[in-house]
Amino acid sequence: MKLLNVVGIGPGAWNKMTIEAAEALQCSDTIIGYTVYIDLVKEHLPGKEFLSTPMKKEVERCVMAFEEAEKGKTVSMVCSGDAGVYGMSGLMYEVGERYPDVKLRIIPGVTAALGGGAVLGAPLIHDFCLISLSDLLTPMEKIEKRLQAAAEADFCIVLYNPSSHKRKDYLQKACDILLKYRKPDNVCGIVENIGREGETARVMTLGELRDTDVNMFTTVFIGNSQTKNLDGKMVTPRGYKNV
Amino acid sequence: MKLLNVVGIGPGAWNKMTIEAAEALQCSDTIIGYTVYIDLVKEHLPGKEFLSTPMKKEVERCVMAFEEAEKGKTVSMVCSGDAGVYGMSGLMYEVGERYPDVKLRIIPGVTAALGGGAVLGAPLIHDFCLISLSDLLTPMEKIEKRLQAAAEADFCIVLYNPSSHKRKDYLQKACDILLKYRKPDNVCGIVENIGREGETARVMTLGELRDTDVNMFTTVFIGNSQTKNLDGKMVTPRGYKNV
Repeated sequence: MKLLNVVGIGPGAWNKMTIEAAEALQCSDTIIGYTVYIDLVKEHLPGKEFLSTPMKKEVERCVMAFEEAEKGKTVSMVCSGDAGVYGMSGLMYEVGERYPDVKLRIIPGVTAALGGGAVLGAPLIHDFCLISLSDLLTPMEKIEKRLQAAAEADFCIVLYNPSSHKRKDYLQKACDILLKYRKPDNVCGIVENIGREGETARVMTLGELRDTDVNMFTTVFIGNSQTKNLDGKMVTPRGYKNV
Repeated sequence: MKLLNVVGIGPGAWNKMTIEAAEALQCSDTIIGYTVYIDLVKEHLPGKEFLSTPMKKEVERCVMAFEEAEKGKTVSMVCSGDAGVYGMSGLMYEVGERYPDVKLRIIPGVTAALGGGAVLGAPLIHDFCLISLSDLLTPMEKIEKRLQAAAEADFCIVLYNPSSHKRKDYLQKACDILLKYRKPDNVCGIVENIGREGETARVMTLGELRDTDVNMFTTVFIGNSQTKNLDGKMVTPRGYKNV
């Protein structure tokens, strides 16, 4: 049985990876991933073979990883954040059906919700949802229904992929849905370039968030009804009974 | 300005901690935390001072950390998983209002949803919610409303604190709510003792989950309508349009 690692490298900086993830990469012959993620780890891994496929060629990237593993190489597929959160581990299992003699080993990592939450303060102390605003593979009605449900049930919410070139107004539309159930002064926050050069964070209100420009490197946090702005930090209490 | 670390140590095993977390602990004079978490890291940190308070004495534990930091010591407060997910970082900010000359540094870690997800396969590839079934600080009606909303909007769901001595039937009650919106064959999974000795995982249906005994070391995963059981692994596809 051959082993193939699927490794979540965390937000970006090498030291924000788990020890287990670093060890897996150091023990690999070949490291495969989207070029942006390869560039994040390359300098720490001299002498390794690096392979990649362009964006949107994810199935080909998975096949490449299995083919290299079948040759007898120790292979790691890298993903930013956690490999299991909007990451490659699901597709790796699906493609892996064709390679029954290769076993996957999934190594978790710090996803943007956790990495960005730590920068903002403590926004996710209580129940929360992750919602991606990308409608590339998900119907918009499904995304809107989830925004409504999460807003109405007073979850803290983290938005992944809040914007792209083709979806400039998606965050504004999402905020308009949230504003049907939440007050305009609901505490929110955004973090850009989590754990990378140029990291910035800002705590604001939902009303302000609606009119804020974000980009594909931004992660957006919407607090629940109890979330506070404590001296510029976004802090959600542990529950409702202690307020 | 004095610095006080709040460190998520991940599931338990030392190598599942981030490099940054391990470095913070190694550079600390004093490590404070609930005894169970102290015991998980103690053997890797010779020569450190370890301080603790009993369970439910969380405010006292936070005060202790700030008092030690004020003495000029380098202090780390440890939490299992991520310090910002049902963890201590929120309370640390609240208590910290009384200690304006101590600055918090939050170091994120792998929470049970990510650690357990990696054991089960890839259950959280798409939008998901975390819900704690503990009603110690949250009214039960709020928890039930969130279960309903998450079930109806087809989120993947992770249940934290699914059981305790006083709440033996809470998971069963939660499943009964989910079963109003989901089919009995909805793919689910449970993981016990994630990243620790005695780690076990099982993939099952929602109908089976309803009649399964869990304990306070179990994390429960409920897939969305697309989640599959692929040779014993719980796998959620990246979206709906590619099914």
